[in-house]
Amino acid sequence: MSSAATRPAGPDHLWSVDEHLEDILETVRPLEPIELQLLDAQGCVLVEDVTVPVSLPPFDNSSMDGYAVRIADVAGASEEFPAVLEVVGDVAAGAADLVRVGPGQAARIMTGAPLPPGAEAVVPVEWTDGGLGEGPVSGMRARSLAPEGAEGHVRVHRPAEARAHVRAKGSDVKAGDRALEAGTVLGPPQIALLAAIGRGTVRVRPRPRVVVLSTGSELVQPGEELARGQIYDSNSFALTAAARDAGAIAYRVGAVVDDAETLRATIEDQLVRADLLVTTGGVSVGAYDVVKEALSHVGDEDEAGGGVEFRKLAMQPGKPQGFGSVGPDHTPLLALPGNPVSSYVSFELFVRPAIRALMGLTDVNRPRARATLKADKALRSPKGRRQFLRGTYGDGEVAPVGGSGSHLIAALAHADALIVVPEDVESVDPGAEVEVVLLG
Amino acid sequence: MSSAATRPAGPDHLWSVDEHLEDILETVRPLEPIELQLLDAQGCVLVEDVTVPVSLPPFDNSSMDGYAVRIADVAGASEEFPAVLEVVGDVAAGAADLVRVGPGQAARIMTGAPLPPGAEAVVPVEWTDGGLGEGPVSGMRARSLAPEGAEGHVRVHRPAEARAHVRAKGSDVKAGDRALEAGTVLGPPQIALLAAIGRGTVRVRPRPRVVVLSTGSELVQPGEELARGQIYDSNSFALTAAARDAGAIAYRVGAVVDDAETLRATIEDQLVRADLLVTTGGVSVGAYDVVKEALSHVGDEDEAGGGVEFRKLAMQPGKPQGFGSVGPDHTPLLALPGNPVSSYVSFELFVRPAIRALMGLTDVNRPRARATLKADKALRSPKGRRQFLRGTYGDGEVAPVGGSGSHLIAALAHADALIVVPEDVESVDPGAEVEVVLLG
Repeated sequence: MSSAATRPAGPDHLWSVDEHLEDILETVRPLEPIELQLLDAQGCVLVEDVTVPVSLPPFDNSSMDGYAVRIADVAGASEEFPAVLEVVGDVAAGAADLVRVGPGQAARIMTGAPLPPGAEAVVPVEWTDGGLGEGPVSGMRARSLAPEGAEGHVRVHRPAEARAHVRAKGSDVKAGDRALEAGTVLGPPQIALLAAIGRGTVRVRPRPRVVVLSTGSELVQPGEELARGQIYDSNSFALTAAARDAGAIAYRVGAVVDDAETLRATIEDQLVRADLLVTTGGVSVGAYDVVKEALSHVGDEDEAGGGVEFRKLAMQPGKPQGFGSVGPDHTPLLALPGNPVSSYVSFELFVRPAIRALMGLTDVNRPRARATLKADKALRSPKGRRQFLRGTYGDGEVAPVGGSGSHLIAALAHADALIVVPEDVESVDPGAEVEVVLLG
Repeated sequence: MSSAATRPAGPDHLWSVDEHLEDILETVRPLEPIELQLLDAQGCVLVEDVTVPVSLPPFDNSSMDGYAVRIADVAGASEEFPAVLEVVGDVAAGAADLVRVGPGQAARIMTGAPLPPGAEAVVPVEWTDGGLGEGPVSGMRARSLAPEGAEGHVRVHRPAEARAHVRAKGSDVKAGDRALEAGTVLGPPQIALLAAIGRGTVRVRPRPRVVVLSTGSELVQPGEELARGQIYDSNSFALTAAARDAGAIAYRVGAVVDDAETLRATIEDQLVRADLLVTTGGVSVGAYDVVKEALSHVGDEDEAGGGVEFRKLAMQPGKPQGFGSVGPDHTPLLALPGNPVSSYVSFELFVRPAIRALMGLTDVNRPRARATLKADKALRSPKGRRQFLRGTYGDGEVAPVGGSGSHLIAALAHADALIVVPEDVESVDPGAEVEVVLLG
């Protein structure tokens, strides 16, 4: 990685959490945009300024079910002295050929239907006798059941001002207006607007495809039998789910045995569908740390940007981490430690921001808050390490759940926040203010 | 609907927003649970209490890469006077057959590997010479490159307490413990725990399948050409996206023309894949209001629970609404008004809670907050109607975006909150406190 290469960082350099994240975010570039169908673009970042091609509404139209009339004809109308108008036909929504409303005439009109020529306002059907010759009505009878409603006479009981109940052409947006700016994240209301102005497709950065591999010869697929010395693979499930939560299309490859050749072959095989690779396990100082072994020498030295660098971070859990790129397209790879809590915390701190950076989002980090520590005893934290403890957050308070051990999955499953203890703090007393990462 | 039937609610009854929502939530039942693969259960609600079948960790294991030793052998060890131990072999993670550590012996051990018989503690490799006969090392050489590391002698530079760097069997969870309670929503950490205790599948309420239909002969698919009197269909896109956001599997059927037979046939056709049907348009008092026409008489009177009731709500936008059930399985159906802002606001207030109720979630509503109104002039609201205006919320303030017109899609696309003006309030001054629905 070029940025890593320019740092004064030998193998014994202890990276801070911020330095590691900064290196990742300096390296990971947003994915190239593609044109997607509207609904496929949900949650994605728009890369173009979208201009309105046609005004909305595209024509003057009725905001009510009622009658399109001329103002003069209904001036002074009341229930006692109604204006009696000749009904010259229906104007339904979508109508192309419109009746003309002349003096003394009205057209029955539906919500959204174009205001017919000659008409100046709409009176709601509730202000009329609906053509039935009796008192005010609460609605129209269905055209299919009572076609005669489109003819005859209607009594109008109230006057209308010019343009009453008419939505003017362009009153929502006008042709040439900026509908949405590049950088907008497309949620349902933005999709509504794009559809309304006629955009069937839109140019966005796609969701990144994230391939998740766990490593370890001790790992067994959940649902199978455990033999002696084995445990269940949980990381590949947790991180696949977390990658989806972050907005990615995630593929769980599952557990790979501790053999460098097998791991290299698996990664090479997966590259075709990966915008980002995430591995867990095998990054520490052991003799069977296969990720480190397999990937430390993968980069072609003649090729810029290749290779994975393994680092020690000043954090707990999550000290050993790898970051770099693999394959001909320099696909970014994050190698996380294998303890379940370590891998999950590392995901939240480093992989989630990387996924969101690939999506082109500017807001890549989890929200944080200040909270009062609610605990029976002081929290202990090793000096020189930024510690991330699991906690539950609410009403400005955070309570730790479980201990600091990186194997405590049950506590993690009951937490909704990470309590951050800075590098220079070795003890936090109950009642003290702490920073928390909200896991949402 | 039985609950609707027991209300004193004639066709002229003006329903409050709360009454309508209450009726929906009393009627819509959570979906029947099914057994799903772990990753397919993401975001779903667990319906069983999950008990831990096997303790975690399932065996005493090392938390470090290092050497498994006997306490007495390393007592008093220092760099100057190291304990020299015979290395009797490697213990890798996943190892089934373990070497025995006798007096004066050590086994090289990897993180997660079972503590071998005879050993009482683990010393990290950094506290030793790694078998190289020189000073302290920072890690082990890969087994594949240096197999001799599993034999020879190691110098240990520091003593270890009993059980140091050993994770005890059951220290995370014990067999018989409650892992997760029924009602838990399964996010990544919960999926981690379920995988870790060996659960390959889990019993949850599935995501509801929501079919979205818009109606209107004036509607054209985005990307096509508009003819006179036509507009683009935006509701089916917006509500499909919103249904996905709410947690559903959503199918967009698209625009159906204003013909009752066509609509009935389309709905009948879609029932097979619908846990909930949502229509937009055709619910008001016009002569072409096809949803009302097609569905008012669909319920078999001899059959309990069938039929859709059309109502007027004391709200703006969104006055006309339909709710009921259709088909042999009494599939719930919400008929929303067709104006884009009305349909979106109705979705947020009524459909989203229905979807979340189908999922078995207890927290079905959007979060709300109190905010100070930031505006140039007072907000006006019709008496007797609860008004939902679009706004942008931040730092305890909310500013209105656009006007109250239910056709103002552009403003909706720039809002992130709904400003609630209660039924008995006709004007809200700038600086007043208002309730807001956070659209998140």
